[in-house]
Amino acid sequence: MTTQSEKAEVFRGLHHQPRALVLPNAWDVPSARVFEDAGFPAVATTSAGLMVSLGYRDGEEMPRRGLVEAVGRIAQRLFIPVSADIVSGYGRTPRAVAATVRSVVAAGAIGINLEDHDHRNPSGRGLFSTRSQVRKIEAIRNMAAEVGIPLVINARTDVLRLGSGDPAERLQEAIHRAVAFRDAGADCVYPMGLAEPEAIATFVKAVNCPVNVMVRPGLPPLAELERLGVRRVSFGPAASYATMGLLKRISQEVLTQGSFRSLVEGAITHEELNRLAVPRESTGSP
Amino acid sequence: MTTQSEKAEVFRGLHHQPRALVLPNAWDVPSARVFEDAGFPAVATTSAGLMVSLGYRDGEEMPRRGLVEAVGRIAQRLFIPVSADIVSGYGRTPRAVAATVRSVVAAGAIGINLEDHDHRNPSGRGLFSTRSQVRKIEAIRNMAAEVGIPLVINARTDVLRLGSGDPAERLQEAIHRAVAFRDAGADCVYPMGLAEPEAIATFVKAVNCPVNVMVRPGLPPLAELERLGVRRVSFGPAASYATMGLLKRISQEVLTQGSFRSLVEGAITHEELNRLAVPRESTGSP
Repeated sequence: MTTQSEKAEVFRGLHHQPRALVLPNAWDVPSARVFEDAGFPAVATTSAGLMVSLGYRDGEEMPRRGLVEAVGRIAQRLFIPVSADIVSGYGRTPRAVAATVRSVVAAGAIGINLEDHDHRNPSGRGLFSTRSQVRKIEAIRNMAAEVGIPLVINARTDVLRLGSGDPAERLQEAIHRAVAFRDAGADCVYPMGLAEPEAIATFVKAVNCPVNVMVRPGLPPLAELERLGVRRVSFGPAASYATMGLLKRISQEVLTQGSFRSLVEGAITHEELNRLAVPRESTGSP
Repeated sequence: MTTQSEKAEVFRGLHHQPRALVLPNAWDVPSARVFEDAGFPAVATTSAGLMVSLGYRDGEEMPRRGLVEAVGRIAQRLFIPVSADIVSGYGRTPRAVAATVRSVVAAGAIGINLEDHDHRNPSGRGLFSTRSQVRKIEAIRNMAAEVGIPLVINARTDVLRLGSGDPAERLQEAIHRAVAFRDAGADCVYPMGLAEPEAIATFVKAVNCPVNVMVRPGLPPLAELERLGVRRVSFGPAASYATMGLLKRISQEVLTQGSFRSLVEGAITHEELNRLAVPRESTGSP
């Protein structure tokens, strides 16, 4: 039986291997269990996918308690490490954000993503200051030490999409923030929107710590990302987007053609679905 | 604004139109909202899809309260009628089953599916007696009249898959049960596993009320089902099976080829996903 601390260390180690960590993001129990069964070494949650599945828009509209419970449902049914997307931590103060992290760790998570996007800023484009974010990361690191979990902190900056200035200025600001987050105790930095090879190379070289990029249309294939020095490639909400796209195609076929091909082809069985509700060993699945 | 009673009457009317009602089964808010946006006139829930998404196997392992809350999340965000799969009603007595139905009606459902499968029977193949099931349907009908909702009752029998005797004997027993359920107040009858054209024709003619068949591999296309007299064709858990199948293919591609094509092709956007969290009119979507 792997302890939560061991899982955290395993997860941290996955950021320092010859191959990049490819991290699928799940939104409910069966999506996470499919990824585990497929052989991914860890799973993260996607705030967009998870919150929308429960009837809330991405952001911090969903009550914190609901987020923590959803993370717990997933973490309690997986053997592999689970990292939680906690958006911007549901708080303006280091204390409030650390309390959120404490809750998701208690629910079973061994890592977190923390954004610097201020979701309560009425402009929709507000960012927390670098200093404010650094203090939150330090508070999270201290809290994790207190509870004895070597939590893996992935510090995300949204400055590439929400910051001011031209693309080159935003890239410099993203690097400035990422370096500060790294020095405050982040294990990995995550510049949302970074996808262009030259910018990735510049960023990776400048921050000198594990860098996370997210799958999006136009992202280079994994081999090129590894060549550029990327250490972690996450799905983000992409798998949620893909499954909803499939449901649209199924609907279109049924409504316009009266046929059910896309509904039954490539599908799993009732028995397979049921196995995804529970941990692997309790069903004797391979 | 359509009242809950009006939604129930609209839903009942969909069982008596020139074309069969094609009813997609959803398991969470966005799956239901995709079906609504696509133009289906109503949505049902799938117990298997819904329960597994929250970490419980299909059946009655999931607490009743969690089921009711999940139905409510969906029903409260849709304008079209929502029918709830309540498995076997979470109870052995008419009173207990009627209480379950009262809860899902309070949560916003205007129809229910009720099985005659006794999930607590240790053999896994137990069926409630016809008489017991008739008393439950009568109790549900009386409760619905009390609360003033013309609830649409879809009475499912599992005798084709769990009963004794040869296929012809099981078909006769399914007809016997369906006629009794119809006479007790069911609006539609649902013989689980009925898929073969000749058996469908025999069944439809014998019961003389709306009949529900479920999509499964080998089910005839919609036009033939209509010719055979089927009034309602439901997805069952098929769309859950299909989306999990897609996640398996995505995983396989990422892990073996290091590419992300199936993850981004045919996908919806972040903006589209967010719109699926909330009712149509509050986002101004078409």
